[in-house]
Amino acid sequence: MHAEDLAEEFPVVDINSDALEAAKLLAERRLPGIVVCDREGHPHTVLPGSQVVRFLVPGYVQDDPSLAGVLSESLADRIAEKLGGVTVKTLLGDEKRELARVNADDTLLEVAAVMARMHSPLVAVVAGDSLVGVITAARLLDAALHR
Amino acid sequence: MHAEDLAEEFPVVDINSDALEAAKLLAERRLPGIVVCDREGHPHTVLPGSQVVRFLVPGYVQDDPSLAGVLSESLADRIAEKLGGVTVKTLLGDEKRELARVNADDTLLEVAAVMARMHSPLVAVVAGDSLVGVITAARLLDAALHR
Repeated sequence: MHAEDLAEEFPVVDINSDALEAAKLLAERRLPGIVVCDREGHPHTVLPGSQVVRFLVPGYVQDDPSLAGVLSESLADRIAEKLGGVTVKTLLGDEKRELARVNADDTLLEVAAVMARMHSPLVAVVAGDSLVGVITAARLLDAALHR
Repeated sequence: MHAEDLAEEFPVVDINSDALEAAKLLAERRLPGIVVCDREGHPHTVLPGSQVVRFLVPGYVQDDPSLAGVLSESLADRIAEKLGGVTVKTLLGDEKRELARVNADDTLLEVAAVMARMHSPLVAVVAGDSLVGVITAARLLDAALHR
């Protein structure tokens, strides 16, 4: 069994697309993250849901969550205010999040090695520069448990 | 709206329970992680699926995933060998993973602040020492988008 046999279809957004639409996709499909492609359509990085949440919370409140109580705005207000007219690229911020990726013909142990090395909950399966799909840790464990 | 209104039921395992059973639970329900409770039943930490995968891959293969190809064992072999007779506590390893937690009556912005601060894809909602449920980043965004 190889990576391509386990790869599942996964939502992909363009790095220059609308941040609010990406947040809606994460929310509606209850995804832990979305694969972000560059302008050539090549898989570039993953936008985790927690990163969207980070973007909504002012730095001083992240440092001291008890200050959330003194903000007059709700989280709903923050979403409208912070995500309006912003791209996914802005949402990603400066933190360089390397995409965990494997080749379509890699073995499950190779997939596990890459996932383990990068502490990543998912890896992108690529053939050349194209995204074949995504493998989550749970899917990988399920496949190995049922062999 | 408060944390308790968003909290969803989530699988919980005891820290001294069987590691293989925990891996099966993650795999079958396609979960990104499981809440681990201590022997008093209080929520203690989260076991991410990627940590289970890490446990299965030898350190030298994590350092150089290309070495996965030279191992004679499959990932299925590694699961049987490494998880048999082991507890969840062993799986967690030495890395101390602080549980992101909020109180049942915290606001959504307070939940977001804790999630952002800890870069966590989920937070445990507690009342006293008891687990009320769990809130994922996607669920939090969904609630804020629909207010």
